[in-house]
Amino acid sequence: MKEFHGISASPGIVISTAFLYNEDSFSIPCYSIKEEDIEGELTRYHKAIQEASEELTDLKKKITDEHSQEEARFLDSHILMLHDPMFKDQVFERLKKDLFNIEWVAQSVIQDYIQKLNASGDQYLRERSMDINDVSKRIINNLLMRKRISLADLSSEVIIVTPDLLPSDTLLMNKWLVKGIVMDAGGRTSHTAILARSFGIPAILGLRHITKEVADGDILIIDALKGIVYVNPDKETLLKYKKKKKEYLKRESELFNLSNLPSETRDGKLIHLKANIEVAEELDSVHAYNASGIGLFRTEFLVMQSGQEMDEELQYSAYIKVVKGMNGLPVTIRTLDVGGDKLINEIAQRDEKNPLLGWRAIRFCLERTDVFRIQLRAILRASAAGPVRIMFPMISGIEEFEKALKILKGVKRELRSEGIAFADEIPVGCMIEVPSAALTSDILARRADFFSIGTNDLIQYTIAVDRGNEKITSMYEPFHPAVLRLIKIVVDNAHDAGIPVGMCGEMAGDPMAAVILMGLGLDELSMSSFSIPEIKRIIRSTTILEAEEFLGTLMDMKSFKDIDHYVREWMEEKFEFITG
Amino acid sequence: MKEFHGISASPGIVISTAFLYNEDSFSIPCYSIKEEDIEGELTRYHKAIQEASEELTDLKKKITDEHSQEEARFLDSHILMLHDPMFKDQVFERLKKDLFNIEWVAQSVIQDYIQKLNASGDQYLRERSMDINDVSKRIINNLLMRKRISLADLSSEVIIVTPDLLPSDTLLMNKWLVKGIVMDAGGRTSHTAILARSFGIPAILGLRHITKEVADGDILIIDALKGIVYVNPDKETLLKYKKKKKEYLKRESELFNLSNLPSETRDGKLIHLKANIEVAEELDSVHAYNASGIGLFRTEFLVMQSGQEMDEELQYSAYIKVVKGMNGLPVTIRTLDVGGDKLINEIAQRDEKNPLLGWRAIRFCLERTDVFRIQLRAILRASAAGPVRIMFPMISGIEEFEKALKILKGVKRELRSEGIAFADEIPVGCMIEVPSAALTSDILARRADFFSIGTNDLIQYTIAVDRGNEKITSMYEPFHPAVLRLIKIVVDNAHDAGIPVGMCGEMAGDPMAAVILMGLGLDELSMSSFSIPEIKRIIRSTTILEAEEFLGTLMDMKSFKDIDHYVREWMEEKFEFITG
Repeated sequence: MKEFHGISASPGIVISTAFLYNEDSFSIPCYSIKEEDIEGELTRYHKAIQEASEELTDLKKKITDEHSQEEARFLDSHILMLHDPMFKDQVFERLKKDLFNIEWVAQSVIQDYIQKLNASGDQYLRERSMDINDVSKRIINNLLMRKRISLADLSSEVIIVTPDLLPSDTLLMNKWLVKGIVMDAGGRTSHTAILARSFGIPAILGLRHITKEVADGDILIIDALKGIVYVNPDKETLLKYKKKKKEYLKRESELFNLSNLPSETRDGKLIHLKANIEVAEELDSVHAYNASGIGLFRTEFLVMQSGQEMDEELQYSAYIKVVKGMNGLPVTIRTLDVGGDKLINEIAQRDEKNPLLGWRAIRFCLERTDVFRIQLRAILRASAAGPVRIMFPMISGIEEFEKALKILKGVKRELRSEGIAFADEIPVGCMIEVPSAALTSDILARRADFFSIGTNDLIQYTIAVDRGNEKITSMYEPFHPAVLRLIKIVVDNAHDAGIPVGMCGEMAGDPMAAVILMGLGLDELSMSSFSIPEIKRIIRSTTILEAEEFLGTLMDMKSFKDIDHYVREWMEEKFEFITG
Repeated sequence: MKEFHGISASPGIVISTAFLYNEDSFSIPCYSIKEEDIEGELTRYHKAIQEASEELTDLKKKITDEHSQEEARFLDSHILMLHDPMFKDQVFERLKKDLFNIEWVAQSVIQDYIQKLNASGDQYLRERSMDINDVSKRIINNLLMRKRISLADLSSEVIIVTPDLLPSDTLLMNKWLVKGIVMDAGGRTSHTAILARSFGIPAILGLRHITKEVADGDILIIDALKGIVYVNPDKETLLKYKKKKKEYLKRESELFNLSNLPSETRDGKLIHLKANIEVAEELDSVHAYNASGIGLFRTEFLVMQSGQEMDEELQYSAYIKVVKGMNGLPVTIRTLDVGGDKLINEIAQRDEKNPLLGWRAIRFCLERTDVFRIQLRAILRASAAGPVRIMFPMISGIEEFEKALKILKGVKRELRSEGIAFADEIPVGCMIEVPSAALTSDILARRADFFSIGTNDLIQYTIAVDRGNEKITSMYEPFHPAVLRLIKIVVDNAHDAGIPVGMCGEMAGDPMAAVILMGLGLDELSMSSFSIPEIKRIIRSTTILEAEEFLGTLMDMKSFKDIDHYVREWMEEKFEFITG
C-alpha cells in the first residue's frame, strides 16, 4: 500500500478502480529542415490551425447542447488563442531561425510561454496555462494527424488518474462513471477543481507524480477530506475507509439538515456564512448549502474570457446572472486581481522577479484604467438588479483606495449621463491582505463601507513566506501570533468605525480556525460553499463568550507551535471531526 | 545637455572628461562542429583554462604587492570557479549535445548561470554574478586569443563610463587619474561601490544605458549626492556645478570638523552613529568619520570567499581584524544573510518564484547548521579580542530566534570543551525586518539583547512591494504611516523590555528621516560611514522634544504623500541641505 498527499479540491471519500488517462504521452519528432522547406512547414501549420478551429467550433456546439452556452464560452478564448497573431509570428520567427520541423518549433514556443506563465508565481496564471496547453495539443495532434481520445467513452465506474485534465475533457467526461479525480497538476482554483465541485465529484489535485505510481486497474481510496490517495490499500485500511465513507455520508446528511437553520452562535450572534465563487455554474451548490450571499466573486476568469476588447456585455451578463440567481442576497464582486487574456500576456511578459510583491490587482487596474472602467461599468449596471458590493483587492493604503474611489465616481457620472440605471449607494469595501492596509485600517475604515480580510496574502506578507515554496511552506502559519494580532487590529478598527468586517481567505473555511474567528469578532466568513455546514455546526454550538475566552488564552501564548497545538487539541475535544 | 539618474554609490561632485571603457563589446563566433571535433574543442578549452589560471596567479601577486593579501583574496574564489568540476561537466555535456564551437558553448553555459543568479532577485547574488563574468571573460578571451586591456594605463584625468567594472579592473585602475565612475550596472553593495567609497572616488551606478548615451571625450558632471549625471552640460549648469562643487568641499570640511564631537541631541541625548561595512578595508573610512562602532558587518562576501569548505580560519581572521581595528568599539556581526560560493549555487539553482519571500538568511542557516556553526565558531572566537555582538537576520518570530540561540549555545559548549576563549556574555540580537517579528517584538524583546531594524525588507514586506520592480518602485515608501507605526511598536516594545534598538537599513542614513527616527526613539543608527557627518549635524541641532512634536504631527496624517511632502518641506526649511 502506498500513500500520497495532495490538495483536496472537491470533498468526499471514494473507493474505486484507477483509470490512467495520459494524453500527454506522445512524442514529438525533431528534425532539421532546409530554408526551402519553410514554406511547406508553414502550410502544414496553417492547415493544422484550421482543423483545430473547426474541431473547437464542433466542440462548442456539443457542449452548448449538453450543458449551456455559458459553459461553452471558454472555448471562445481558445479559438482566439488559436488565431493570436503574436503567437503565429513567434512560431514563424523561430521556424526561420532554428530550421526545425514545425511541430517541434510550435511546441517549443508553447513550452516557453507556459513556463513563463508558471514562473509568474501567480496561482491564477499558472492555471490559465492549461488553456494554452489544451489549444496547443490540438494543433500538435493535427500536425501529427492523430485523433484525440475522449473521456466520454468510459464503460465502467472509475477514478481518473491523469497528469492534468483539459477543460474540454472535464466538461465532456461521463459524470456518472467518473467517481473521482486524481491529478499530478492543479490547485483549488483550477478549472478541474471548480467543475469537480460543481459536479460533486471528489478530487485530489497537485499530487505531482501520482501518474507514475498508479497502474490501470489499481484499487484506489480517495480521502478528499484529508487530501490522501491510497494505492492498493491493505485490508485494514480498506475496512477502515468503508466505515469512514459510511460515517461521512451520514455526517453529510446531518450537516445538510443544518442548512435551513441560521448560522448564529449559541448566545444568538449571527455570523454570515457566504460563498466564494468564480463562475455562475457554482450557484446550484451555493443554494444547496444555503449560503447567505456571495462573499467573494472572483472575476479573473471572466475578464480573461471577455478578451482583449474587454467585452462589457459579456461581463455584465455574467454579473447579472449571479445577482439574479442569488434572489436578493448580497453579491460581493472583487475587481480584477490580476490580468486577463492579452492582459495576462502583458503581465506574464514582464517576468517579475518577485511577482507576489509585484504589479498586481489594484496596482494594475489603477494604471490600466481602460480595463478597470469597463469592469466597473459592468458591475454598476448589474447593481440595478439586486444588492451588489464592490471590493478592491491588494489595497495597501488610503491613497490607492481613494484613487480607486475616484475612478468609480467617474464611471458613475458617465453612466448617469448615459441614463443607465445603477445602485448609487453601492457599498464599496477593500480587501485587507497587505500588512500596511491592516496597520492603517483605522484610516481606511473611515472611507470604506466594509472590509474583507484576505488571509492567504496577509499571512504570506506578514511572515515573508511564499507558501508555494516547498522549502519553507511550513512557515506559512495562520495561527502565528502576529497574524492573530493583525486580524484583531483590523476587526477592532472596523468596529470602532461602525463597519462590518469579513474574511474570504482559506482560513475562513478552516474548521480549526472557526472559534478563533468568532472570538476575534468577524461578522462574516466567506468560503467554498461545501465548507459552510461544518463551520455552521461549530458556530451554532459555541458562545461568543467561550470563543473570546479561548482567544484570550491563545493571545497570551508566545509561539505559534504552542498555539497550533492547543487549538487542535481543544477543537478536537470539543467538536468531533470526521476528518480528524 | 542630457541628464541621467542612477544610484549614488560613493558621494561627491566631479566635472571631467568621459573615458568609455567597454570590455563587453566583443563578438563570439558560432559554428557547428562534428562529433569527431569534440576532442579538439575540449583540448582548446583546457588550454584556455590553464592560461586563465596562470593569469590569475600573476594578477594575485600584483595586487598583493600593490595592495594587500586581503584584497587579492577574492581571486582565490575566481581560481576555484575556474576549476569547478560542475561547470566543466556542464560545458562538456552541452558541447556533446549541441555540437557548436567551444567558445559559444562556454558562453551559453555562463549566460544561463548568470541569468539564474540575476533572476534570484537577491541583490547580493546579482552582484556576485560579476565575479563569474570576470572569470568567464578570461576563458573566452583566451579561447579567442585576445589580450585584455587594463585601466592601469590611463594617461589623463577621466571619468570612467562603463557597462560594468570587474573587481580586478577596480583594484588595478589608476586611482589618481580616475576622478569618477559612471556605470550601467551595479548597486550600493557592489564591489565597485565598496571600493569606490574606500578610495574616495565619486560613483553613480545602476544607470542602465549610460554607455549608449556617452561618447569618448564628452564633458560630464557627476552629482553623486543626488545620483545625477549630466552629459555635455550647458554653460549655466556647468557654472552652477562649479559653484556647488566648491560649496560641497567647504561643507565636507565643516562636517568633518564635527567628527570629534559627540552625536547627541541639543538636549543631551546620545544617539550612537555606527557604520555598515562589508570588508575590513572600509575601516579607514569608519575611523575617518568617527563612527562609534560597527552597527552592521555584512558577512555574505566573506563567507562566500571562505569557499565550499567554509574556512573557519579565514572568517576568524577577518572578524578579528575588524574587532582589533575598532580599538574597543563594539562590532555587530550579522550572520549569513544568504549563501556563499557553493551555497550560492545551491540557492541559485532552487530558482525560487518569489526569492524575497523564500529560503533565505536564518531560514537557510537553521537548515544548513554546518555552515551556521562554523560561522558562529569564528565569531565567538573573535569575541575574545573585543566587544562583539551577534545579530540574526530575517527572524520571523520567537521559534526561529530560540532555535538559533540553541545552536549558539551548542557551539559555545563545544568551544568551552576545546578550551578556546570567547566572550560568554556576548550580546545576541535580532534584525527586525519581517512584519511578524515587528508585531511580536514584545515577545522577542524578552529573549533578545538588542534589536536592529532592517528597513529595506521591512518596508518591502509591509507594503508588499519589491522595490527592484520598476513598475511599482514608487510604492516603496519609508514614510508610509504603516511603516512608521510598525517602527514605533518595535521601539516601544524594546524600551519596555529595557533593551536598546537600532536601525541599519537605508532609512538610518537618510537625512530626511533623521528627525523622525529621533522622535521614534531609536538608540542607534548604522549607515555608510560617509553619511555620519550629515546625520550628526541634524541630531546636534535638534531636541528630542522637537523631534517628538514633529513625529506627532506626522502620525496624525493619513496619507504617505502628505507625510512625505510635509517632512521634506519642514526638513529643508530647518536644515540647509547642500543636496537639496
